Amino acid sequence: MEHVDLLISAAWVLPIEPHGEVLERHSVAVAQGRIRAVLPTTQALQRFVPERLVERPGHVLLPGLVNAHTSAAMSLLRGAAESSSLAGWLGQTERLQHRWIDAEYVRDGTELALADMLTSGTTCCGDVHLYPEIVAHSVAQARMRACIGLPVHHTPNAWAGSVDESLDKGLRLRDEYRADPLITTALAPRGPLSDAALARLQRIADELELPVVISLLEAGSAHYELRRLEQLGMLTPLLVAAQLPALTSADLELASLAGISIAHCPQSSLKLRVGTCSVSELLANGVNVALGTGMPAANNDLDLFDELRTAALLSGLSPPPAPELSPHDWLKIATLNGARALGLDAEIGSLLVGKWADLCCVDLQRVHSQPVYDPAAQLLYAMCRDQVSDVWVAGRSLLLDGRPTQFDSGELMQRAQRWRERIAAAQR
Amino acid sequence: MEHVDLLISAAWVLPIEPHGEVLERHSVAVAQGRIRAVLPTTQALQRFVPERLVERPGHVLLPGLVNAHTSAAMSLLRGAAESSSLAGWLGQTERLQHRWIDAEYVRDGTELALADMLTSGTTCCGDVHLYPEIVAHSVAQARMRACIGLPVHHTPNAWAGSVDESLDKGLRLRDEYRADPLITTALAPRGPLSDAALARLQRIADELELPVVISLLEAGSAHYELRRLEQLGMLTPLLVAAQLPALTSADLELASLAGISIAHCPQSSLKLRVGTCSVSELLANGVNVALGTGMPAANNDLDLFDELRTAALLSGLSPPPAPELSPHDWLKIATLNGARALGLDAEIGSLLVGKWADLCCVDLQRVHSQPVYDPAAQLLYAMCRDQVSDVWVAGRSLLLDGRPTQFDSGELMQRAQRWRERIAAAQR
Repeated sequence: MEHVDLLISAAWVLPIEPHGEVLERHSVAVAQGRIRAVLPTTQALQRFVPERLVERPGHVLLPGLVNAHTSAAMSLLRGAAESSSLAGWLGQTERLQHRWIDAEYVRDGTELALADMLTSGTTCCGDVHLYPEIVAHSVAQARMRACIGLPVHHTPNAWAGSVDESLDKGLRLRDEYRADPLITTALAPRGPLSDAALARLQRIADELELPVVISLLEAGSAHYELRRLEQLGMLTPLLVAAQLPALTSADLELASLAGISIAHCPQSSLKLRVGTCSVSELLANGVNVALGTGMPAANNDLDLFDELRTAALLSGLSPPPAPELSPHDWLKIATLNGARALGLDAEIGSLLVGKWADLCCVDLQRVHSQPVYDPAAQLLYAMCRDQVSDVWVAGRSLLLDGRPTQFDSGELMQRAQRWRERIAAAQR
Repeated sequence: MEHVDLLISAAWVLPIEPHGEVLERHSVAVAQGRIRAVLPTTQALQRFVPERLVERPGHVLLPGLVNAHTSAAMSLLRGAAESSSLAGWLGQTERLQHRWIDAEYVRDGTELALADMLTSGTTCCGDVHLYPEIVAHSVAQARMRACIGLPVHHTPNAWAGSVDESLDKGLRLRDEYRADPLITTALAPRGPLSDAALARLQRIADELELPVVISLLEAGSAHYELRRLEQLGMLTPLLVAAQLPALTSADLELASLAGISIAHCPQSSLKLRVGTCSVSELLANGVNVALGTGMPAANNDLDLFDELRTAALLSGLSPPPAPELSPHDWLKIATLNGARALGLDAEIGSLLVGKWADLCCVDLQRVHSQPVYDPAAQLLYAMCRDQVSDVWVAGRSLLLDGRPTQFDSGELMQRAQRWRERIAAAQR
């Protein structure tokens, strides 16, 4: 008999790797934060003596979801600028951000967003926002996993006065967290940077093997055309292009050859009317498609299961011969593909032995999820976020039977309400 | 002081009529099943002595949602035929329906579906399925409201051997429930009926003032072209065309002139890849657009708030100059427009004094719904079905603080699981 820290048994385990597998009455054994074994529950109970046994008899256990692109702190502005056009929405949101942003705003918004993510099954996110040191601190306190984007803006802002200062501050942050297994960093150019600035940033990224995250929504696709990025040496397997609109066939070829990742953010892209991309076409061309919520101010939440349903339904509009994607294909997009986009696929995103035990558990014992012929299909098409019963990051329980272990929802909501009162009063 | 049966106070009341109104700290007073008053809570407490007081300090109170088109009993097959094409899915689903349908199947599937609807805020549905007398009985037992489609098939089936028999049985059912305020009926031609049969059916509908429900998904739009329906006198304000694909401009003119209703079912239409329609264009042309889930076997659930989010996001793809719809416009589609489609807009669908007290209450005190600048936007973009705390139909509490009052979820799920075991075993 072998000692392990944690043994979780579930009605179904979806390991993501091997692809499409549904393991009935299986368990995941966890030791020192990592997956020790995935095996039938009857065998698990004979082989392991767990410090803690968690039995989930009507549930699905799968890797925690990876939100490949968000700006967590913007959750304080969700619903504040329900304007119709992208220009109107961006203008109003930018004015509000500019007026209110400071370290406290970023902390309160980020903590609210992390709670939103954890309670809906997301265990890792790629975040881009000013004051990344505050974001990193909040993530570390929440015991969640994140790839923190180090923002490099073309104009001075509340956080940094120049490209140089952004890079200095960002790289100091990277050094500070280098030993932390939960926090990694990426470079995040924002706005129309010069060729020289982008080339310098890419040299740093290459040297330190950091992902580079660009949002084509905010900057406008004209500035970050793939052709230009290629000339600057930025089309690499560590490039994450978020909210990419429809690609030309030349762009598709560039993306495919370079093996970049795309963070598909369907809800915010649809809401802001910037169009969308064909996931199945991108995948068929070898592009790694991950899933993100984008900015919570435009989403308006950070529920990645709901985002996944939107993505899957939306793909029903892709013209033939776009290949059909199965529920398992979609779940891989929201887990392993997200991990790959953030450079973390060797560590998380599937239930391979040795990976970190980043897990989520979903209760299918609900009238709207029954009967269950196919647990993957019910996760995709017939569940809601409140069915997420448990979440673990590196084997640590962050949500247990529906209750958060590391944060106080009431206090987070009170802080959010105080921000709303201040912001709404100033708008009048 | 005036006696009332029920007084519900909420942080926000969305009455739907007048359009766009958000009433802060208001209450709804209910007497004999109908809305007696909608007024500020401070005034309500001075004016009324309620038999029962329900206080919901962080919640939104609004009319119960109206699912304008579904086939409730098919919930037993959700996820059973996750095939990719409409033809493949319909073929497999029809084979399963044909093999298993009987009175018990219809009862168990319908009861599961009604529980699914009630727990997600839907208080009224338009249903079309074989064995409508079983459906009506289940609805009556659940104390929910429904417009029961009386199916008229072109081929003999388990329920009726001919068009004549369908009509006889259906009209007997209509007579049986004529005195029941919760149950109304509609005629539902299914499959390629002859001109003579359709004309006869329409004469009956005209005489009895019954809605006529056609699903353009199942029959194929070719058979039920609007031009043909016009020639048969079927384009009336009581026609509900469900799952209409994109309309030609000639069709749009016909629909607009006749004032028909369209039951938009975006999730099942997208999932079955049959295309969709432009809601804002239809509304701008004076067509009444309601919302439905379609068949739960293809949806896979009956969550109309989620369906509404899909509809709203999807409209972001409508090409300009499609007018923008506000969150309030969308909520009206899921309530008052649904009531109008089913011929019930004088009785339900908004909180006008004198209408039935069909209500739902949604708790916004969640980390992902806060802060609240705009409760309508948060209902549309940042809630999940488990936030529906309470539901009333004609003033009777069917869901109270998250707990169903009229059904046992555990027993419904057990019955669903038994059906799955039987059906899955026979498929092997």
